Amino acid sequence: MNTEVISSAQNPRIKHLLALQQKSALRREEGLFVVEGRRELEHCIHSGMQVESVYCLDGTDLSQFSILNSQLSLVKVTKNVYERIAYRGSTEGIIAVIRTPQPLTLESLLQQKGRGVNGKLLFVVLERVEKPGNLGAILRSADAANATGVIVCDPLTDLYNPNLIRSSIGAIFTVPTVACTSEDCIAFLKQHGVQILTAQLQDSHLYYDTPMAGPTAIVMGTESTGLTDVWRQAADAHIRIPMLGQLDSLNVSVSAAILLFEAVRQRQLS
Amino acid sequence: MNTEVISSAQNPRIKHLLALQQKSALRREEGLFVVEGRRELEHCIHSGMQVESVYCLDGTDLSQFSILNSQLSLVKVTKNVYERIAYRGSTEGIIAVIRTPQPLTLESLLQQKGRGVNGKLLFVVLERVEKPGNLGAILRSADAANATGVIVCDPLTDLYNPNLIRSSIGAIFTVPTVACTSEDCIAFLKQHGVQILTAQLQDSHLYYDTPMAGPTAIVMGTESTGLTDVWRQAADAHIRIPMLGQLDSLNVSVSAAILLFEAVRQRQLS
Repeated sequence: MNTEVISSAQNPRIKHLLALQQKSALRREEGLFVVEGRRELEHCIHSGMQVESVYCLDGTDLSQFSILNSQLSLVKVTKNVYERIAYRGSTEGIIAVIRTPQPLTLESLLQQKGRGVNGKLLFVVLERVEKPGNLGAILRSADAANATGVIVCDPLTDLYNPNLIRSSIGAIFTVPTVACTSEDCIAFLKQHGVQILTAQLQDSHLYYDTPMAGPTAIVMGTESTGLTDVWRQAADAHIRIPMLGQLDSLNVSVSAAILLFEAVRQRQLS
Repeated sequence: MNTEVISSAQNPRIKHLLALQQKSALRREEGLFVVEGRRELEHCIHSGMQVESVYCLDGTDLSQFSILNSQLSLVKVTKNVYERIAYRGSTEGIIAVIRTPQPLTLESLLQQKGRGVNGKLLFVVLERVEKPGNLGAILRSADAANATGVIVCDPLTDLYNPNLIRSSIGAIFTVPTVACTSEDCIAFLKQHGVQILTAQLQDSHLYYDTPMAGPTAIVMGTESTGLTDVWRQAADAHIRIPMLGQLDSLNVSVSAAILLFEAVRQRQLS
């Protein structure tokens, strides 16, 4: 391995790494993003993405990290530098710069074999999602439920936001994820006979009374403003989680998990 | 109303407020805690807690906030002070100091009428929960599911941590919550015929194959270490959410919500 040790946060490579973490425009322009943590990096490499360079805390034991090979540019950094570049408490000791892959297309979601629990398409669709942490948490649940994919329509965050990657604990690399317009998504779902279930109160059915074993897209809006009319009108049914207490809403990632696992339950029974 | 305007973060009352937000030992010692936000404060007052003082951003319109009455000590603060004391972006404009109520007992949970969906006891039990944000998120789901109560055993956070209150969006005031030892909790559950379902993989049943319409406690450990032996041995059954993807765990608050709403589903069907 090519090794050097960087001891200053003013080093141009470190400044570039920090800028990639902080600026979505720079990530887009350079086609690079940053992954932190062992599990996350393992899922990233396993999904076939190209590692540009790896930064690790000097002294970190990488011997059990077999996925790193000798082709990688490995840069060691001192503790003070690592603390600057790490989101987390510095225990994991590894951060990498990754080349952004070609974006997935909607059509590619039809080629995902062995997903959807019973082989039928199962999507989570998120309109105008803005909190990277929520999207990450939903990806984590979508991985556990083996959903076919997650579709983000008109998103207000990029897929390689560091907080998204972290909250997904790597599920952004294991769950096929497509960004597109709502119009394109609706046309795709209708063309392929996928029922559109929108999470909203008005004129809604209880989610567990709604069959989800056939091809299904669970569509959710933001916690503050809900779904736009284009989705309400495209829906085959509106579904709701009963709110039996004094508050009036659930966290969007919690709602997505409840709905996804109802689909899992129905598909494993059917 | 008694009004004054504080313009310095060095003001003793402001320093005291900040200390209450930051130090659990001080909260315990003085029997006071801090609530931020309109909804949260409304739920807090509605639950019968005693407001000691209210701080608001000078110029905030409180006219629609009818729950504040003339007995309250209202302190106006300037924008720079408000930004120091507010967790959130300062839009809501209201923060209050509240007197900590007498802790609830396990026995008091038997007196909660109209909870548990079908009138049967439904508890979430969390062993050694340490992240206030997770506990807050679980309380929010427990409110939506109308659980009888949440029991925290040997907790590593206090119930009036500001981050807990915020992530619960006030559910800490709407859901009966008891802190106790695991031993006391197990004795209580067994004495009152509540089945103990522990979330763990080993020797487990799928959660949706497990009847939850009778008196039930859903017991969860931490994401990192799971449950201790005392709970594993006390369990009537171990239950698991199927992990069908490449990652090996769900967020604990997401898991709790999936399990709680399976109990809701079964109870509304039964």
